[in-house]
Amino acid sequence: MPITVPAVTHFADRVADSIDLAGAPACVGLDPVLDKLPKQTRAHSDTPLDAIAAFCFGVLDAVAGIVPILKPQSACFERYGGPGVVLLSAVIKAARERGMLVILDAKRGDIGFTADHYAAAIFGGDCSADAVTLSGYLGPDTLLPMLRPDKGAFILVRTSNPGSDAVQALQLADGRTVAVMMADVVAGLGKDRIGARGLSSVGAVVGATKAAEGRLLRTHMPDQCFLVPGYGAQGGTLEDVKQLSRPGAKTPGELGVIVTASRSVIYASSPDDAHWRDAVKEAAKKLVGELSSLRA
Amino acid sequence: MPITVPAVTHFADRVADSIDLAGAPACVGLDPVLDKLPKQTRAHSDTPLDAIAAFCFGVLDAVAGIVPILKPQSACFERYGGPGVVLLSAVIKAARERGMLVILDAKRGDIGFTADHYAAAIFGGDCSADAVTLSGYLGPDTLLPMLRPDKGAFILVRTSNPGSDAVQALQLADGRTVAVMMADVVAGLGKDRIGARGLSSVGAVVGATKAAEGRLLRTHMPDQCFLVPGYGAQGGTLEDVKQLSRPGAKTPGELGVIVTASRSVIYASSPDDAHWRDAVKEAAKKLVGELSSLRA
Repeated sequence: MPITVPAVTHFADRVADSIDLAGAPACVGLDPVLDKLPKQTRAHSDTPLDAIAAFCFGVLDAVAGIVPILKPQSACFERYGGPGVVLLSAVIKAARERGMLVILDAKRGDIGFTADHYAAAIFGGDCSADAVTLSGYLGPDTLLPMLRPDKGAFILVRTSNPGSDAVQALQLADGRTVAVMMADVVAGLGKDRIGARGLSSVGAVVGATKAAEGRLLRTHMPDQCFLVPGYGAQGGTLEDVKQLSRPGAKTPGELGVIVTASRSVIYASSPDDAHWRDAVKEAAKKLVGELSSLRA
Repeated sequence: MPITVPAVTHFADRVADSIDLAGAPACVGLDPVLDKLPKQTRAHSDTPLDAIAAFCFGVLDAVAGIVPILKPQSACFERYGGPGVVLLSAVIKAARERGMLVILDAKRGDIGFTADHYAAAIFGGDCSADAVTLSGYLGPDTLLPMLRPDKGAFILVRTSNPGSDAVQALQLADGRTVAVMMADVVAGLGKDRIGARGLSSVGAVVGATKAAEGRLLRTHMPDQCFLVPGYGAQGGTLEDVKQLSRPGAKTPGELGVIVTASRSVIYASSPDDAHWRDAVKEAAKKLVGELSSLRA
């Protein structure tokens, strides 16, 4: 029976519905880096940013309709200054027009009225993102301006980089780790922001390579969507992702995971391949195929 | 005896020399907000961003030569998208041309190669900032790409917002607070990056309203510059700043504090004041006058 997407505005409902339509909780990370681009995109471009634009729109054409969610990496655009930010806005708009949800990976976090300005920067205008990644070190009050029912937030809880243990794995006097403490902050912010599908618009970033801790984090964040980097190229497996999923989910969209892959999809072709878009499309299909086997 | 500024490249030496020349460890926070601007800047502007540009350059003209350091708030520019980022670059360039050091308040933090991109975004090009504020939740390895001898980094340690206690004041099993743990991360990163004036290019953000903890944080970070928000409008006093300073400093530049004031300087005039630049200039002089009384 086909799933009909209702006219919901709650972010977590849009996520769950989009994942159910696609059949898998897949997300493509768009981290364009000049020296990794297919040669074809550079041959017909006057400037580095032109090549990145050609690449981004090519990736969008290849993955839209297959992968439900796009995660552009803000830094890769910001490094080109104002014109880079203009391109980022255009990419976000184009992705949404192609039916994708967009999570802007910006890892922002600031106090008071500055948070309001970041909210305006990320969620304002007609090319605004659906969600953003945030840092919570400044405390829960600083995250509030970024929380809106129709928009999502993914707060950094447990990341997959080698040095993350030096902060996130430290134990507090009350027995929790710093990561579990942050998970409790996320759960607290998210509990009054749960949509019709049972998931909160306040989610968490939890790396696939931290699956053992992920099970514990899931008990502290039962209603959260986990944005899961580290799958594939970085070593995370399907089994790792299962450890992070919500038990008892009835559909892929209710598993509460969004698995993001970047390099393995967007750089799937050899640099000389003129048909690089086809390679990206095949890699997107492969990602969705793998993740469609996830069950609660 | 006048102090001659040598042709140093080390960031912390530039800070100490600039402060000694100015006579006080003062910094102006540039957080332009449309509805707070003097009416004159809006009357002659076609767009909100034009008014913000007129305001920023007016503030620069008023404070350059008086206050040694400028701290633009990235979010206030980012909210205007690509054109806002172009203006930010122009403001940074103009401030440096007027002899000011520029600390970009962006609170960035990301892993691996993304951190390289943020470094390129902030420190690349001819309008690049001298330093940036960073978040360390992801771990020390993620901060390394942002650390360069000729550039500065100020890592969030203890902030003055009401909700910061929920994270930063928590106690670890080893007896340290989360803030002290982050202070130790900062000191560790900074110990091999000390300039001729005895200060490290890796500094910390420590709010003026957390002075009681600031004394403890100073013992953990003896060689760090503290970027100190919260002075003046937010309640921090000269006595609070003294608690954060390095004992035994011989000059204002070696106190290891950079006290930043925003609203009390940039919005010093009444909205209708046609001579608003004069009011900003007077407020800048007042700030420097107050802070010039700081002694070790």
